[in-house]
Amino acid sequence: MRRATRDDVPAIVALLVDDPLGATREVEGELAAYLTAFEAIDADPAHELVVLEDNGEVIGTLQLTILPGLSRGGALRAQIEAVRIASSRRGQGLGEELFRWAIDESRRRGAVIVQLTTDASREGAQRFYERLGFVASHVGMKLPL
Amino acid sequence: MRRATRDDVPAIVALLVDDPLGATREVEGELAAYLTAFEAIDADPAHELVVLEDNGEVIGTLQLTILPGLSRGGALRAQIEAVRIASSRRGQGLGEELFRWAIDESRRRGAVIVQLTTDASREGAQRFYERLGFVASHVGMKLPL
Repeated sequence: MRRATRDDVPAIVALLVDDPLGATREVEGELAAYLTAFEAIDADPAHELVVLEDNGEVIGTLQLTILPGLSRGGALRAQIEAVRIASSRRGQGLGEELFRWAIDESRRRGAVIVQLTTDASREGAQRFYERLGFVASHVGMKLPL
Repeated sequence: MRRATRDDVPAIVALLVDDPLGATREVEGELAAYLTAFEAIDADPAHELVVLEDNGEVIGTLQLTILPGLSRGGALRAQIEAVRIASSRRGQGLGEELFRWAIDESRRRGAVIVQLTTDASREGAQRFYERLGFVASHVGMKLPL
């Protein structure tokens, strides 16, 4: 596990595409927009984009963001987005490894809660998060612009 | 509607407390932590904390955050947190006014999606968001640390 670099962007995009929902909304050829997004993430210490690497191959990724807010006593919250494990490597505990890091890092940075949303169609993902201690207490609502 | 200042923090905290869920997790007397959170929000252009004011009284609040990410083609997403309208002023379309601003501002800043989570027990809130065009496509999962 390590912080992602600009050179990892094509491999991360390949992971985003390697997914039933991602396949419909990612455009692997359009690297420029992904690189611009990477620069914005990398420049802001609120974000940590990490990759899981095995023998030089990127096999997992996750973005952690620490958000200040007034609610919950002015607490910091940690948010997780863009989680992927290579389809060929699922079921080997790698997702849990990514999340253990993310949860520890959130605590280290002073967050009092970790939050994420998962598409309601991803039933296996929801069970995975529940095993890690997440509670499905909220409805995640999205408005495409 | 205007950007919140440090002097608005006590009134915003009063709005957060004025809510069945907020009442259990906010501590109105501990202003220092809220002021620290305000400084973090105010210092980072990713965040816009706004208040709705009527005759010098703060009657609504919302926090908008613009988040970069690699998914969805490296798109910016807008996230809304800590939405409150004073209990004495609900049902007057003020929430819709706050959200119209937030949606317009998200578009202006280049976001392709606006997202939020709402506690599953807030059924009225979910219907309100659906009327604005939000789709309850996701499960919002939280892990307290």
